[in-house]
Amino acid sequence: MIILGIDPGIAIVGYGVIEVDRGNFKMIDYGTITTPKEESKPARLCMIERALIKLIEQYKPDEISIEELFFSTNTKTAMIVAEARGVLLLTASKYCGSLFEYTPNQIKQAVTGSGRADKLQVQQMVKTILRLKNIPRPDDAADALAVAITHGQTNRMSGQFRIK
Amino acid sequence: MIILGIDPGIAIVGYGVIEVDRGNFKMIDYGTITTPKEESKPARLCMIERALIKLIEQYKPDEISIEELFFSTNTKTAMIVAEARGVLLLTASKYCGSLFEYTPNQIKQAVTGSGRADKLQVQQMVKTILRLKNIPRPDDAADALAVAITHGQTNRMSGQFRIK
Repeated sequence: MIILGIDPGIAIVGYGVIEVDRGNFKMIDYGTITTPKEESKPARLCMIERALIKLIEQYKPDEISIEELFFSTNTKTAMIVAEARGVLLLTASKYCGSLFEYTPNQIKQAVTGSGRADKLQVQQMVKTILRLKNIPRPDDAADALAVAITHGQTNRMSGQFRIK
Repeated sequence: MIILGIDPGIAIVGYGVIEVDRGNFKMIDYGTITTPKEESKPARLCMIERALIKLIEQYKPDEISIEELFFSTNTKTAMIVAEARGVLLLTASKYCGSLFEYTPNQIKQAVTGSGRADKLQVQQMVKTILRLKNIPRPDDAADALAVAITHGQTNRMSGQFRIK
């Protein structure tokens, strides 16, 4: 099964593609979709849509896994990232159809075994689980691989959390 | 010029279509796009996209005007409405191309002349400006007409605020 993991954003969207085969995880690709600050917000949302369609066409994921947003304060940035996330959800749903979301705590728990793990511990485990030489860079791509792994683990361990 | 005004939401999206001709405002249509709570979030976002495409095809607006979101607390609802708003921005931009956003204060100011007007004063002025017999219902549709009027007034008075 091919899983595409997504770390939402407006300036940088992280993505990670993995293959899960009988409990084994293999990294296929990872990277980022970036949009320039100088562009209007609608133009950036269109760029994100087009780039995600291209990724789905290229890797044909069976399922897409996307990180949920949590912000402690209700900044303008939080709202813009949520708008970009709406575009990612719409596009993933239209072009793949099988879509799941996980909270940051679910991701930490699934990848490291502890909901209190820090960012570096999560990234180290991503490196170990996917048998990579280095921690994937940038953070957005590593986070996207973590949410893809989370979906692979969760599927295996306890059924599916489809977005409601 | 035909203006489509949008009041964003996930359960209810208000819309209002007006024609502006040499400073005269005429109501063409108003109403709501609604999505059932029982559906998954991606399914509801797809419904909103399809309904907005249909409205744009039907009324062929020259410009689309959309209300900005403000939430005092960062609730889960605020994030979901922002996700729906991302879908509205993407779709409006792809199918119309000319897109503007206004804050609640800009809308109150443009429609009533005062940034401190209450909801009922705004709705009364919508009724007066469009020469309607009654205040449009529901509130979401009246708000959408208000943001359409705001764009018509702003265009006339002080140039355009294109979304950056």
